[in-house]
Amino acid sequence: MNLLLIKPTEINTDGRVTLVGRRHDHAREVLRVQTGETLRVGVRGGRVGTAEVLSEDARGLALQVTLDAAPPPRAGVDLVLALPRPKALKRVVPAVASLGVDRVVLVNAARVEKSYFESKALADDFLAGLVDLGLEQARDTVPPAIEIRERLKPFVEDELDEWAGKDSLRLLAHPAPASPVEPPSTHQRAVVAIGPDGGWVPFEVELFTKAGFHPFSLGPRVLRVEVAVPVALGALQAGRGRSP
Amino acid sequence: MNLLLIKPTEINTDGRVTLVGRRHDHAREVLRVQTGETLRVGVRGGRVGTAEVLSEDARGLALQVTLDAAPPPRAGVDLVLALPRPKALKRVVPAVASLGVDRVVLVNAARVEKSYFESKALADDFLAGLVDLGLEQARDTVPPAIEIRERLKPFVEDELDEWAGKDSLRLLAHPAPASPVEPPSTHQRAVVAIGPDGGWVPFEVELFTKAGFHPFSLGPRVLRVEVAVPVALGALQAGRGRSP
Repeated sequence: MNLLLIKPTEINTDGRVTLVGRRHDHAREVLRVQTGETLRVGVRGGRVGTAEVLSEDARGLALQVTLDAAPPPRAGVDLVLALPRPKALKRVVPAVASLGVDRVVLVNAARVEKSYFESKALADDFLAGLVDLGLEQARDTVPPAIEIRERLKPFVEDELDEWAGKDSLRLLAHPAPASPVEPPSTHQRAVVAIGPDGGWVPFEVELFTKAGFHPFSLGPRVLRVEVAVPVALGALQAGRGRSP
Repeated sequence: MNLLLIKPTEINTDGRVTLVGRRHDHAREVLRVQTGETLRVGVRGGRVGTAEVLSEDARGLALQVTLDAAPPPRAGVDLVLALPRPKALKRVVPAVASLGVDRVVLVNAARVEKSYFESKALADDFLAGLVDLGLEQARDTVPPAIEIRERLKPFVEDELDEWAGKDSLRLLAHPAPASPVEPPSTHQRAVVAIGPDGGWVPFEVELFTKAGFHPFSLGPRVLRVEVAVPVALGALQAGRGRSP
C-alpha cells in the first residue's frame, strides 16, 4: 500500500478523518505509524496529498489531511476484456487499476466458460476491493469503471460506438502476426480488446474488425491475461511517447 | 498449460515417452485426454510439436512425440531485477519465462529486505517449477537462466560488462520522468534493470548510470514488479517493431 485511500464522505470539513478496520490495521501493523508522522493519502475519485497522524489507538487512526496534488495522469486507454477465470480476474483488476485504465467491459466470448459469470469475484463490493488494491499501489485515486456484458455481439454491434467514442483508436490484441499499427497520438483514446486464453475465435475477430478494430500483435507468445494487459499498455505508452 | 513440457532425457530414441506425476495428472484431470488424441508438447531447451496419446492408465501417460517446429523467438531481453518479496517472485518468474526473457539476475538493493534472500522460493527446484509454468503458458521450451547476486555494487562494477555484452542497450527503469530512449534495433539485446517497490535509491541510480544505463520511464505510476516487467517488455517490443 503506497497510498491510504479515503472516501470523500469520511473527511470532515476541517480535513480530519478517523479510519477503522483494514486501513487502521495496515497503518498500525505494517506501517507502524506514530503520532506526528506523515502518510501519503488520496481521496477516492479526487486529489492526493499527505496526512499527519493525530492519534492511533483503539478508537482508530485519526488523521489531519492536506490534499495538495492531482493524482497521476490517466493512461487514456479503455479495455474490452474477455471475462477471465476468477483466479486471473483477481490479479488483472488490481493491475488494470494500477495502470490508470479508465473503463473496462468484461465480455463473454466463445472461449469463456459460462460459469465465470456466476463468480463471487464479480460482486460490486469485491471488484471495488480489487480496484482499491491497484489504486493504493499506484498512488492513484481514480477507479476504472467496470461493466459486465454477457452477450458480446449486441455489445460490439449496438453499444460500442457510443461507449468507445467515434475517434478512438480501436485495437484487437491477437497472437497471430499482424501488420504494425500506428500508435495513438498523445491525446487520442485507445480501446484495446483482449481475448480469453486461446484467443478470439474467427467469428469474434470478424465482429471486432467490422466495428473498426485493427489487429494488434502482442508477440508470438500465448500470455496470461494479467501479463497481456500490461504488455499492451506498455506498447501503447511507448508509441504515444514517440508520436508527435 | 498450453504445452506439455518434456525433459530431453525422458524421450526414447523412437520418440516415445511415458509421463507420471503432475503432467500425467493434468492430462487426465484437466485435459481429460483420450487414446488417439493429439497434445501440444515441447522438449525443455529444444523443439516443439505434437504427441499422440498411446495410452493413459495407472502406469502413466504414454505418448508418441513428433517435434516439428522451433519454439517462439526470444524477446532479446535480459533483466536485472531487484529481488522481489517471495509472493511477488512467485508471480514474476512465470511471467518472465512466458515473455521469453533470456537471463535474469536477481540482485540486492537498498530497498530489498535482506530476509528475501533466505526465501525457499529461491531454491533451484522451486524456481525451475515456476519457470516451467511460464514456458507451458507461452508454448515455449527455453528457460531463462536465473542467477542471484547478494551484492549489487560488485555485480554492476565487475561482472556486468561481461554478463550483458558490450553492445547491449542498457535501460534503467525509473518512475521519474526520463528523456525518451531510442528503442533497440531488431537484433540488439536490451538489458533492463527494474528496481524494488519504492525504486532504486540515488546511489544505485548513479551506479547503473556509470555502467552505461539510460533512465527509462515506465510512466508516472508505482507499479508492482509483476506488472512493471511486462510493461517494460511491451514498450521494448513496440519500439523494435517500429525500428529499422
